[in-house]
Amino acid sequence: MARDPRHDILFEPVQIGPKRLRNRFYQVPHCTGFGTERPRSQARFRATKAEGGWAAVCTEIVAVHPESDRAPQPIGRLWDDHDEHNLRLLVQEGHAAGALVGCQLWHGGKNVEGNVSRAATAAPSQVPSEVYPMTVPRELTVSEIEEIQGWYVAAALRARNAGFDIIYTYGAHGYLLGQFLSPFTNLRTDRYGGSLANRSRFWLETMERVRSAVGDDCALACRMSVDARADGGLTIDDALAFIRLADPLVDLWDVNTGTIANGWVDMTPSRLFPEGSQLPFTARVREATAKPIVTVGRFTSADTMAQIVRDGLTDLIGAARPSIADPYLPAKIERGEADRIRECIGCNVCLVKALVPANIGCTQNATAGEEYRRGWHPERFTRATNAGSDVLVVGGGVSGMECAIVLANRGMRRVHLVEALPRLGGYAALASKLPGLGEWHRLVDWRQGELRRLRNVEVHLSTTLDATGVDEYGADIVVLATGSSWVADGLNPVTQRVIPGAELAMVRTPERVIAGDLPPDGEVIVYDAEGYFMGVGMAEMLALAGRRVTLVTSLPTAGPFLERTLEAHPVRTRLASLGVEVVCDASVASINDGSVRLSRYGAELERAADGVVLVTARRSRDTLTRALGARAATYSIGDCVAPRLLADAIFDGHRLGREIDSDDPRRALPYARERAGV
Amino acid sequence: MARDPRHDILFEPVQIGPKRLRNRFYQVPHCTGFGTERPRSQARFRATKAEGGWAAVCTEIVAVHPESDRAPQPIGRLWDDHDEHNLRLLVQEGHAAGALVGCQLWHGGKNVEGNVSRAATAAPSQVPSEVYPMTVPRELTVSEIEEIQGWYVAAALRARNAGFDIIYTYGAHGYLLGQFLSPFTNLRTDRYGGSLANRSRFWLETMERVRSAVGDDCALACRMSVDARADGGLTIDDALAFIRLADPLVDLWDVNTGTIANGWVDMTPSRLFPEGSQLPFTARVREATAKPIVTVGRFTSADTMAQIVRDGLTDLIGAARPSIADPYLPAKIERGEADRIRECIGCNVCLVKALVPANIGCTQNATAGEEYRRGWHPERFTRATNAGSDVLVVGGGVSGMECAIVLANRGMRRVHLVEALPRLGGYAALASKLPGLGEWHRLVDWRQGELRRLRNVEVHLSTTLDATGVDEYGADIVVLATGSSWVADGLNPVTQRVIPGAELAMVRTPERVIAGDLPPDGEVIVYDAEGYFMGVGMAEMLALAGRRVTLVTSLPTAGPFLERTLEAHPVRTRLASLGVEVVCDASVASINDGSVRLSRYGAELERAADGVVLVTARRSRDTLTRALGARAATYSIGDCVAPRLLADAIFDGHRLGREIDSDDPRRALPYARERAGV
Repeated sequence: MARDPRHDILFEPVQIGPKRLRNRFYQVPHCTGFGTERPRSQARFRATKAEGGWAAVCTEIVAVHPESDRAPQPIGRLWDDHDEHNLRLLVQEGHAAGALVGCQLWHGGKNVEGNVSRAATAAPSQVPSEVYPMTVPRELTVSEIEEIQGWYVAAALRARNAGFDIIYTYGAHGYLLGQFLSPFTNLRTDRYGGSLANRSRFWLETMERVRSAVGDDCALACRMSVDARADGGLTIDDALAFIRLADPLVDLWDVNTGTIANGWVDMTPSRLFPEGSQLPFTARVREATAKPIVTVGRFTSADTMAQIVRDGLTDLIGAARPSIADPYLPAKIERGEADRIRECIGCNVCLVKALVPANIGCTQNATAGEEYRRGWHPERFTRATNAGSDVLVVGGGVSGMECAIVLANRGMRRVHLVEALPRLGGYAALASKLPGLGEWHRLVDWRQGELRRLRNVEVHLSTTLDATGVDEYGADIVVLATGSSWVADGLNPVTQRVIPGAELAMVRTPERVIAGDLPPDGEVIVYDAEGYFMGVGMAEMLALAGRRVTLVTSLPTAGPFLERTLEAHPVRTRLASLGVEVVCDASVASINDGSVRLSRYGAELERAADGVVLVTARRSRDTLTRALGARAATYSIGDCVAPRLLADAIFDGHRLGREIDSDDPRRALPYARERAGV
Repeated sequence: MARDPRHDILFEPVQIGPKRLRNRFYQVPHCTGFGTERPRSQARFRATKAEGGWAAVCTEIVAVHPESDRAPQPIGRLWDDHDEHNLRLLVQEGHAAGALVGCQLWHGGKNVEGNVSRAATAAPSQVPSEVYPMTVPRELTVSEIEEIQGWYVAAALRARNAGFDIIYTYGAHGYLLGQFLSPFTNLRTDRYGGSLANRSRFWLETMERVRSAVGDDCALACRMSVDARADGGLTIDDALAFIRLADPLVDLWDVNTGTIANGWVDMTPSRLFPEGSQLPFTARVREATAKPIVTVGRFTSADTMAQIVRDGLTDLIGAARPSIADPYLPAKIERGEADRIRECIGCNVCLVKALVPANIGCTQNATAGEEYRRGWHPERFTRATNAGSDVLVVGGGVSGMECAIVLANRGMRRVHLVEALPRLGGYAALASKLPGLGEWHRLVDWRQGELRRLRNVEVHLSTTLDATGVDEYGADIVVLATGSSWVADGLNPVTQRVIPGAELAMVRTPERVIAGDLPPDGEVIVYDAEGYFMGVGMAEMLALAGRRVTLVTSLPTAGPFLERTLEAHPVRTRLASLGVEVVCDASVASINDGSVRLSRYGAELERAADGVVLVTARRSRDTLTRALGARAATYSIGDCVAPRLLADAIFDGHRLGREIDSDDPRRALPYARERAGV
């Protein structure tokens, strides 16, 4: 297909200092779990985006010195020749795919925890970190300021030697340069504190020294938050004044908002923020500069992207998450296939995966982070050695859908996807009905689109198969993807047993609540023993429906997993505003008619309850797996094996499809590990 | 000196299967942050203990397969030739120092989070992990059980090939083998569940297969928890029955109690448990076996160790933490210098450091984890090139004491340690006055002993020096170690400012409370914005003194750092039992006479208060540093630079001493990094 002419503007080249971007698609720096220590994974991951049309790809944070470190998370480091050598591979692979490559030089100041160097951290003033209050920095002396600027210069020279096109001085997200700029964290009274000019000095001097060291060989990018969006922090007006001061030194402004203390305003969960939510701030940067601007906003709509460029709100479409969800986003727009973009759902599991377990992943894109270690490409599939088979996939949740798509792409004669319900999507579809999670339905939408497009797939809805039915279907290969359900009996991690009284009429599962079968009016106890979106989702849904809700959780906080997705604080604030009471570190020992018995810190207490919702555990729907487990060429994937993150369930379906022709498709093939040797 | 004859029994050799331990000191497996991926650090760390006299040193967990992993934490892995090769270095260095070396084969079952392989986890039954409730395992089929046993065999063969003397099947701490054995987690109804014989089957079969694979080349150790010490878990009687069943297969019983769900009963914080607290359980193992038994108990008293061996309660003195705090513990007893043992204080910071930032460290022993990367040895010091200098150390906290000891050992002519108070110990001495933290005073005691022993050190108490005084002292080298204080003005991480009203008479600092200057009778608000021991310590102290205490914390939980030291749950239980109310996620906006104004989830609320204790931030006492910062050969260490963990403050003093003759002693020399390359 041909490109939609309305999108032509996105494919105009843009000059940044001495370098030229081939179009307006720009992958801003973001973490991966690869750093400098897994150089091949790093290079393949970014280069895949470059192949997909991004005009620039950038590293994550690259520490300029051991005093600012994030180990054991593999981050970028430019401390010595070895680091420089490792990062060179990324540059080479990025260049080979036609992109510019950027390096984000970083000193975290006091917003660092777990300093493996054991050196004291550094900041403009000696006040503990807002996010890691155990980190109390030293107040930098002027000679130490000069020393740190020297580290930036040394790292910039290494970056230039490694071949990077773009070098960042990075002060967004509340790191050292930003700590000096912000009146919130800079309490100095010398020439590095007080007035805006003084607060700007450290950063300006750093840029001057980097510029004079690297000359015109590289473009210089400045990445900053233009409004802290928090009391006492940097305001947009201060930011614009800073930009005017710094503009002569800068080739590219990479702008966002917030700090790591309120990171959700930048790495916006879809639960809370729509596409482009930072534009009211970032679009004002144009008032202060004529240089190119890149801004982010979880943009996945080509029309919106083209519009905001036309409107002059930004020059470049910055992306972290949309480029992870679809490395080929630019190529798809270019080919006139914008409707095939695998759109980011804004769940932030990429961040979770990048930090722990330190291998970036993506709910939408099962290949993210697997480019090197498993050799997977998001858009390319090899023909299976057993291609030409007929495949039956039982279960049309997102894991089954994903597997069907991969198998169809690998050349199976026919893939039959059979779903018991009248709709596809399984647990993803269910989750998308929770307050704020509507965008998660993109998981279903994209797969539905692909299934429609693939000529060797047929989908059968409202069709239930038992073991005999599967046998009689006569497929060469059978994939069971029958998913999981929330338990109704209260089976839970705390007692490893069911909860007495769970059978009472006032007790509900999440599925029943979402289907509209709410617990009786009055006091409702939501018991969350899992800690992710379902417990808080139930509490919010029921509070909105007028119930008086107490969220009882066996965990130390409400929804602890949401801390990793940056949703926890705003979700807890929302629950508080809805009048939801939270009781942490408590478990439900038993349910009686009209009350529940809680156990907390060794004591028991009784709470009145007109209704109870149990969010205690998911159980595999594994009847078919148990019946057919030993059948030849029959495999189980996703939640019917073990309930897990949507990202991992989709991954599992994808993995089976990729390895359907291996010696033992049940087990993943070994993946390549990058590691030190003796 | 000669060995005390009462300790002779500790130096008897012990036969374990085909191998012979040279004495009764046994370093049980414990984590380090090195794993297989930092092989040189791993080898040097353990081999240093071997040099110090331990008869055996062991690895940490060594995963038998990618489906059980802990990345990004560097753990041991034995998946391929590369892993085997990396671990061989540990064996070689351990052997060279005269020790046997053990390898702890591990499958975490469902007690694993952040599975980098993205494979489903495995367990006897499909119930979420008690500790990671987002982890829901698959229920293992019998053929999968056999498959996993095959992984143990493959890993055991690799361990044998690498030269290990002792191979563990490890099911303690609630991992897979233990999940099968425990009636808490094993709900199976087939021959692997139900009766004790059935629950034992997986482990027994695994040991049989490992034994038949490695033959008599290695000793087989079985590490287990002999009582879950929790409702529904394994009991000592069940454990003894299992031991009787397994005994013919086992050469060494390595026993402890609890699981990772209540890890504090095994990795006992001194706050909660005395030396040897597990003996009432572990000593009963003798009833079931005549094979050698190793048991742990944070043993640092040579008399106690000898006594429990004499009493037949154990054959070997197991140690993790005491061997980290003093790798030369056996050698010191052997030399008749038991009073010089650097005794573990039971703070569990070793665990914190081993996990994040993934380089083991120790509060007592600044060299722990630095053996390879900085080349430090706990007992050996090189003569400094500027030895013969006179050194003045201002400040007799533990950082200053440590620095004075290292400098004296490095041959300074004279080290003058000057302290303003009539006692040594600084913040460590203060902390040791909190409820339960008495053992922390060992930090002071050990250093006091060394200072007394060193002939080139003189200590001056009750002596305050100002800048002129320091200058006039006339030392060649000056070290400033003046420490930090809790702020009285309410400076805090949340607002980065002081708290209005902090000057009111009802407000206290922790130092004043510890000195006996308690807030007025009635309602007391302890405001903790730090999250470690001081906030909960103040709450406990004041509740014990009869105050009605509310612990207000800006953090999501009470004392979140205590989660890492395994103290959180028991501390929270204790606070609850003392009637302390906890308000999380709340900050103190202002203090008025008779009340405080709190901010929580965007709302403000007023709470009555007769007294307030501010645990908001520590501030460096840096008057001398500021006055003398530019003075030649003048250095600052520890909290007066930046308040930090006691472990890091002591480290800082040690580091300066080790590098006092470098080109720029202010800055640490680069350390060796083990990492992958392109």
